[in-house]
Amino acid sequence: MQYRRMGCTGLKLSAFSFGAWVTFGRQVGRSQARELLALAHDRGVNFFDNAETYNAGDAEELMGDVLADLRFPRDSYCVSSKVYFGATTDPKPTQRGLSRKHVIEACHQALARLKVDYLDLYFCHRPDPETPIDETVAAMDLLVRQGKVLYWGTSEWPAEAIEQAHRIARAQHMAEPVVEQPQYNLLHRERVEQEYASLYEKYGMGTTIWSPLASGLLTGKYRDGVPDDARLNQPGYEWLRDELLDKGRGRVARAQRIEPIAQELGVSMAQLALAWCLANPHVSTVLLGASKPEQLTHNLDALDLLPGLDEETRRRIEAAVA
Amino acid sequence: MQYRRMGCTGLKLSAFSFGAWVTFGRQVGRSQARELLALAHDRGVNFFDNAETYNAGDAEELMGDVLADLRFPRDSYCVSSKVYFGATTDPKPTQRGLSRKHVIEACHQALARLKVDYLDLYFCHRPDPETPIDETVAAMDLLVRQGKVLYWGTSEWPAEAIEQAHRIARAQHMAEPVVEQPQYNLLHRERVEQEYASLYEKYGMGTTIWSPLASGLLTGKYRDGVPDDARLNQPGYEWLRDELLDKGRGRVARAQRIEPIAQELGVSMAQLALAWCLANPHVSTVLLGASKPEQLTHNLDALDLLPGLDEETRRRIEAAVA
Amino acid sequence: MQYRRMGCTGLKLSAFSFGAWVTFGRQVGRSQARELLALAHDRGVNFFDNAETYNAGDAEELMGDVLADLRFPRDSYCVSSKVYFGATTDPKPTQRGLSRKHVIEACHQALARLKVDYLDLYFCHRPDPETPIDETVAAMDLLVRQGKVLYWGTSEWPAEAIEQAHRIARAQHMAEPVVEQPQYNLLHRERVEQEYASLYEKYGMGTTIWSPLASGLLTGKYRDGVPDDARLNQPGYEWLRDELLDKGRGRVARAQRIEPIAQELGVSMAQLALAWCLANPHVSTVLLGASKPEQLTHNLDALDLLPGLDEETRRRIEAAVA
Amino acid sequence: MQYRRMGCTGLKLSAFSFGAWVTFGRQVGRSQARELLALAHDRGVNFFDNAETYNAGDAEELMGDVLADLRFPRDSYCVSSKVYFGATTDPKPTQRGLSRKHVIEACHQALARLKVDYLDLYFCHRPDPETPIDETVAAMDLLVRQGKVLYWGTSEWPAEAIEQAHRIARAQHMAEPVVEQPQYNLLHRERVEQEYASLYEKYGMGTTIWSPLASGLLTGKYRDGVPDDARLNQPGYEWLRDELLDKGRGRVARAQRIEPIAQELGVSMAQLALAWCLANPHVSTVLLGASKPEQLTHNLDALDLLPGLDEETRRRIEAAVA
Repeated sequence: MQYRRMGCTGLKLSAFSFGAWVTFGRQVGRSQARELLALAHDRGVNFFDNAETYNAGDAEELMGDVLADLRFPRDSYCVSSKVYFGATTDPKPTQRGLSRKHVIEACHQALARLKVDYLDLYFCHRPDPETPIDETVAAMDLLVRQGKVLYWGTSEWPAEAIEQAHRIARAQHMAEPVVEQPQYNLLHRERVEQEYASLYEKYGMGTTIWSPLASGLLTGKYRDGVPDDARLNQPGYEWLRDELLDKGRGRVARAQRIEPIAQELGVSMAQLALAWCLANPHVSTVLLGASKPEQLTHNLDALDLLPGLDEETRRRIEAAVA
Repeated sequence: MQYRRMGCTGLKLSAFSFGAWVTFGRQVGRSQARELLALAHDRGVNFFDNAETYNAGDAEELMGDVLADLRFPRDSYCVSSKVYFGATTDPKPTQRGLSRKHVIEACHQALARLKVDYLDLYFCHRPDPETPIDETVAAMDLLVRQGKVLYWGTSEWPAEAIEQAHRIARAQHMAEPVVEQPQYNLLHRERVEQEYASLYEKYGMGTTIWSPLASGLLTGKYRDGVPDDARLNQPGYEWLRDELLDKGRGRVARAQRIEPIAQELGVSMAQLALAWCLANPHVSTVLLGASKPEQLTHNLDALDLLPGLDEETRRRIEAAVA
Repeated sequence: MQYRRMGCTGLKLSAFSFGAWVTFGRQVGRSQARELLALAHDRGVNFFDNAETYNAGDAEELMGDVLADLRFPRDSYCVSSKVYFGATTDPKPTQRGLSRKHVIEACHQALARLKVDYLDLYFCHRPDPETPIDETVAAMDLLVRQGKVLYWGTSEWPAEAIEQAHRIARAQHMAEPVVEQPQYNLLHRERVEQEYASLYEKYGMGTTIWSPLASGLLTGKYRDGVPDDARLNQPGYEWLRDELLDKGRGRVARAQRIEPIAQELGVSMAQLALAWCLANPHVSTVLLGASKPEQLTHNLDALDLLPGLDEETRRRIEAAVA
Repeated sequence: MQYRRMGCTGLKLSAFSFGAWVTFGRQVGRSQARELLALAHDRGVNFFDNAETYNAGDAEELMGDVLADLRFPRDSYCVSSKVYFGATTDPKPTQRGLSRKHVIEACHQALARLKVDYLDLYFCHRPDPETPIDETVAAMDLLVRQGKVLYWGTSEWPAEAIEQAHRIARAQHMAEPVVEQPQYNLLHRERVEQEYASLYEKYGMGTTIWSPLASGLLTGKYRDGVPDDARLNQPGYEWLRDELLDKGRGRVARAQRIEPIAQELGVSMAQLALAWCLANPHVSTVLLGASKPEQLTHNLDALDLLPGLDEETRRRIEAAVA
């Protein structure tokens, strides 16, 4: 495994991380989850990503059960949660958003579900236009000072809101956000490469990338349409299906254009797309979801491809999907 | 139910809240209290207001018993306490006021009586001329940092004292007060509408309104004098009776003048008066007290009136009681 | 009982307090201590003063036992400790002084001996030239933030050192010292009246007075020499005996000169001397030590004298001992 | 024993301290460790030095067992740990360095191994170029505020990095580092005497000296080569052997040149070298390692030599090894 500093922090994350999104508590049950986490940890993965909203808290509950069972040394891995959407399918007004009340209560609940004393990373899952950033920064700072959170960050926040959070934190001598969790893949590059460009240098922020395979488009598996058992066909993911397929018909076709390059290099489309993500030096870690061990192993192997992924090849790939 | 941000905070309170004042531990016993809280929560009320002084701590004790019994999810509601008057009928010098000692001890006692780990809101029930505001702000900040209080505020403080609290808190990087609990009703408008006007914009403060019905005057029930079983005839409320009736003889008459408008709209005087309160955008929530479920239901129904309460009607109402 | 704000704080102390110095754990055993504390509390005394060094921790242990036994409501009284001299007769280098280590460890030990969760007042018993004031201020601030101390102060510090402590605390947004415990009596006036004069206005500091009777000189009991069972003849108090008697032969004589005034007013010398102390508006409370209930009652009765102690009489008293 | 302030702090350390480095958990087992600690404490030693990396945590575990067994009053001694190298022979990326995660987790682990509630001293064992100093300072400050660490410092940091830590801590109102643990002996003087010169005055830093005997060279025991059972021949210490012997062949010879002076003064080379260290006023304490009681006693006796070590003699010694 390769390890990278999370931005300019001293925290070293494995280049590939393991995320509970979609799969945990739905496609993946306890014995599978155990197998997947054990495999990941064994391969050197040290970051397990989660969120209150993933299957309405069930993903955290399951990960917590399995972590308690596997008994990895607590200092050998990082675990995260994210706050914003609530941990129920129908949250009440006080059970979602980034108010002081919800940020603090959601943290306590995540700690209980994950069965840990502190979260290594705690993300604001979306910006909340109905809470002043000051209130959220102060709540995060409180959790850091109480030892319940080590590092905090944002997910899919506009650069300007992240800048504001830094300004507030510095003025108040509070803990600053140090990491963003943005979507990033060959079909979705603008935010990570353009919008956040100034954040890396100015604040040394790291990124933990979600959807590196564009929810499967870059694996080629939707080449001939969406199979019945695909993640995109699960209830609750209609928005994602729309965004990826219906609203962006051309995407499947664009994604397929990397296939010849992958074949040329003797790897799968997925491996090529993952290695391409990692080639961006501002990427701290790339999150992998998986429901089967073979799939996880296959994706982790993409790391071997990275040294050979020279600038010219990357340009060819980028040109192909453009 | 309608929900509103408490000022510019991210906390969303139900437009109507439920207060323990007067009733809890006196007119209202355990089974009634249980019924009222269950009804309120069921109707979407998410803020239960209390104070150390309400029936000398008994109101908090009772609410705590019932909340423990009803087992609402802790993140589905807010509970408050207020410090200043002490929790006994004859407090010793260290048992009242806004000294660091009393603010902290009163918080610990309220947590014990209410059987919760933290107060969502903690109010300074009156200004204390014998404690410097610095000391009170620092004590509140301490409780926020220790996780025992989420938001703090004031009740019936002059605007200038609230401004001072903000200035001190900002200079010291301490938690600022974010909410006021003032009296507000058709017969008592000056403080909320004039005195506090600059606070809403400058500091984004919210308000939790007490006595929206002027202790019953706006229900019309004192039209023919104070009945024997009225709140105003209870021992300990002589001051209120004096203020409302004896010292302000004209008030009963003024209050009655909204009756024709209420009849015209097909609602009760109380419903009209409550809806009028909510029409003020600076009102975060209006506290309802109740000793009977029917009364609570009736008052909560006032919310239906709000959309139709146009500016012209409000002006007519205001002119009537002027 | 009369109550006074401790300087400009919101804490109200009884005009007379009860101190464990000298007596507790030596002349006074458990049953006497219980009787004295019960009497004091009953008479409205709300401050019980102690220090780690009083009889090497035994005074705190005894007071803690008795307080636990008497079960006064915790918010009805204040209890103090003082750090500097250590709690053993032969403290090791880390067991005395005002280092961060000793300030924190001494607080924990005092809490254990006194059997309380927090000290209302915690004093630096003397200045420590071998610890920078920054270190002591930061240690006190830490204890305040952890909820183990409510108010902190100094005892017998030069005004300049107190000023420094304030300057450091303000610059660092730390808790400032709010009270001094100086010796003050008719024979020892300079520090309280001259040296500290600017502190009262600038920082609103309060004072808790020790030795208001000059260790007994102002009671007249040493008129004919020191009796065998006198406090001054106890081992360990030689320094006090020297200071009061041998080094200041004239003091006994000076003290006696208030006797005629006392007789004229129909009170004892002690009562006159105590009332004179309280007449100084910068005095927050006067500490009384006692080994017998009668003595305590007698001294507490001095409060009745206060209203009649006009300026002219005070001048006469002061002139007499000059 | 002589006691010295640790720099300008109020903490008084014994001139000689006892370190677990090398010996604990390897040459020294439980009964020996118990004997050594009891002897040291009895002779007035009040600082027991340790680190997470000393025998991969075993040195702390052993010291913790023995301290728990001996039951010295907690306030009669200081105990330290150091963070950086990890507590296993093959630490994972998150298990070493000075990230917030490792600094905090290592502290918790050291507290558990040493069986204490707080560390008196906590050192950053080396600078970590892969963690911003801000992050480390904030983590140390957090531990101080939580009461888990009393004083923090650095070990073998360049002066410039220490300066930076001070600047950051002051700007953020955080706890500053107050002590360095550098190597210092007759053969290794530059850092303590030159590089750190400005730190003593500007920041009042103290020093806790390691390797005062240059790992034995200054005892004369390597005069004829390294014996089989010498510390330098233990696995894991090859780097030290190289540095002392192979890479610096001349050192053994230089060390031997103090032998005549020692003989002249009637003391051993070791005693002379230790006393020379203590003669530097910027040295707060000199760490002694020992595997046998006789050795410890012999070295502690070097203190007797100190008063007679006048400037001229010190110059002769320094000239001899130059």
